[in-house]
Amino acid sequence: MVKKGFHVTVVDDLSAKTDLRYLKCHIENNNAIFSKTDIRDYDKLMELDSDFEYVFHLAAQPDVKVSVSNPRFDFEVNIIGTFNILEFMRQKEISKLVFASSLGTVYGEPEVYPTPENYQLKPISNYGAAKAAAEMYCSSYSSLYSIDIVSLRLGNIYGPRSTHGVMFDFYNKLKKDSSNLEILGDGSQTKTYLHITDTINAFDITHTKMKKGFDVYNVSSDEQTTVKQVAINMSEALGLEEVNFTFTGGKRGWEGDVVFTSVDTLKLQSLGWNAKISIEEGIVDYVKWLNQ
Amino acid sequence: MVKKGFHVTVVDDLSAKTDLRYLKCHIENNNAIFSKTDIRDYDKLMELDSDFEYVFHLAAQPDVKVSVSNPRFDFEVNIIGTFNILEFMRQKEISKLVFASSLGTVYGEPEVYPTPENYQLKPISNYGAAKAAAEMYCSSYSSLYSIDIVSLRLGNIYGPRSTHGVMFDFYNKLKKDSSNLEILGDGSQTKTYLHITDTINAFDITHTKMKKGFDVYNVSSDEQTTVKQVAINMSEALGLEEVNFTFTGGKRGWEGDVVFTSVDTLKLQSLGWNAKISIEEGIVDYVKWLNQ
Repeated sequence: MVKKGFHVTVVDDLSAKTDLRYLKCHIENNNAIFSKTDIRDYDKLMELDSDFEYVFHLAAQPDVKVSVSNPRFDFEVNIIGTFNILEFMRQKEISKLVFASSLGTVYGEPEVYPTPENYQLKPISNYGAAKAAAEMYCSSYSSLYSIDIVSLRLGNIYGPRSTHGVMFDFYNKLKKDSSNLEILGDGSQTKTYLHITDTINAFDITHTKMKKGFDVYNVSSDEQTTVKQVAINMSEALGLEEVNFTFTGGKRGWEGDVVFTSVDTLKLQSLGWNAKISIEEGIVDYVKWLNQ
Repeated sequence: MVKKGFHVTVVDDLSAKTDLRYLKCHIENNNAIFSKTDIRDYDKLMELDSDFEYVFHLAAQPDVKVSVSNPRFDFEVNIIGTFNILEFMRQKEISKLVFASSLGTVYGEPEVYPTPENYQLKPISNYGAAKAAAEMYCSSYSSLYSIDIVSLRLGNIYGPRSTHGVMFDFYNKLKKDSSNLEILGDGSQTKTYLHITDTINAFDITHTKMKKGFDVYNVSSDEQTTVKQVAINMSEALGLEEVNFTFTGGKRGWEGDVVFTSVDTLKLQSLGWNAKISIEEGIVDYVKWLNQ
């Protein structure tokens, strides 16, 4: 956004062990402002300036496991937090929002593959419920208060600067012990993974081609990859030849884990978007960054 | 429920100008307990006994208009309140919930009529968003914590003991001035109305035929009635012959008003349910009670 000439205000509570290393130069060049704010704190949100053309809402408790073991914490960040953002926008009369929703988790276990955006939502985790519930409010706020909203249903984003997710976990486990890798579940969970570059392109295309009202897009590559395959690719990218995989067993990696995802992305493709980075290239790229 | 031999605990904050007049005899006969509790108050909820076979969750901020003018209040009661009920059930290990959801408001303005239960939810009011969002949590809680949940999508319930809604408003306006009646909108808003007796039957059938998991039912009569027709029927039931109708104009009665509803009720009918009371009989019955 800074490269495009926008002045950016970054709101983060830095709870995800992040820091300002990537932001520092933009703050020094007066292209960005940082506010250490928890989106649960509505009063503090309201202290922010209001002359925003867009809000990109990506703040979240991102872990399905945490949402199952600590439902109220997930509820507070992902639902109350999102409601606070919408209220902030209504009160400050900001009219364009891009919301980072979730892909597999909002559909749960659909009976139609590839699943289109207008398929019913039946989440099987509280994380998915929170994202789906947040979309319901995006729908009403868009209709009632003339806020144009795009919800991007994202799943398993990976790549440089990411410090969570299955690849990050595998990398750290293999750094500790390069001969053994424990895989949660039976390894057959089949998901789609999307490289950060393709993800940013989706934000880029959708925010510039925003329509009136509320619009939802599946954002996903068409490559289905098993968790075991991710382990294989990760081992290869690290140059490890004989890693012994062990499995904790069970069809799900964790409670609430959606074990098969395949979504229809024709709607996003109709805007000119395509996933360009294969999982193989993507993992090599990510490992390069992780090694640095 | 008392007639069926259940011991009932009623939880209400009495905010809807209600009192204990219908409950008193059951309390005196030791068939019921009353707790004046606001469902936003989780700690107070947790003080309740836990030996419940079923929870029927009907507590809500029921007014679409209020949800639009005061989104946070509606959010707190209808979403945080419902989340508190689900958390209460999870902690107390209660495994059966019947949830009073909403009909027209959760679908918004669908492109398919009659709308089936699995149609996508796109609410245009915060009230509808809250009910749809609550269903997302019903879905995840049911899947994660083995709570069987039935969500009944109810619309425009009327009849004895009801003290809100269009019929109640028309009745009071006509009692004040029997020659003039102001109708919100252009009067062509077309909705379905369901008499309380048919509604209770729906709760009755669904809670006894509950399946594992999360299940949703449209609960509606097949009679589509315009608001103007409701005004005519109400005037007739009051024996008024020459009421002059005036209209505030506009296609919606209020912001967020869904002006056409027609839903598919085959799923509920397959359990043996049918709406038995016509709008004409129903209004006569309701007016009889209102006159008392």
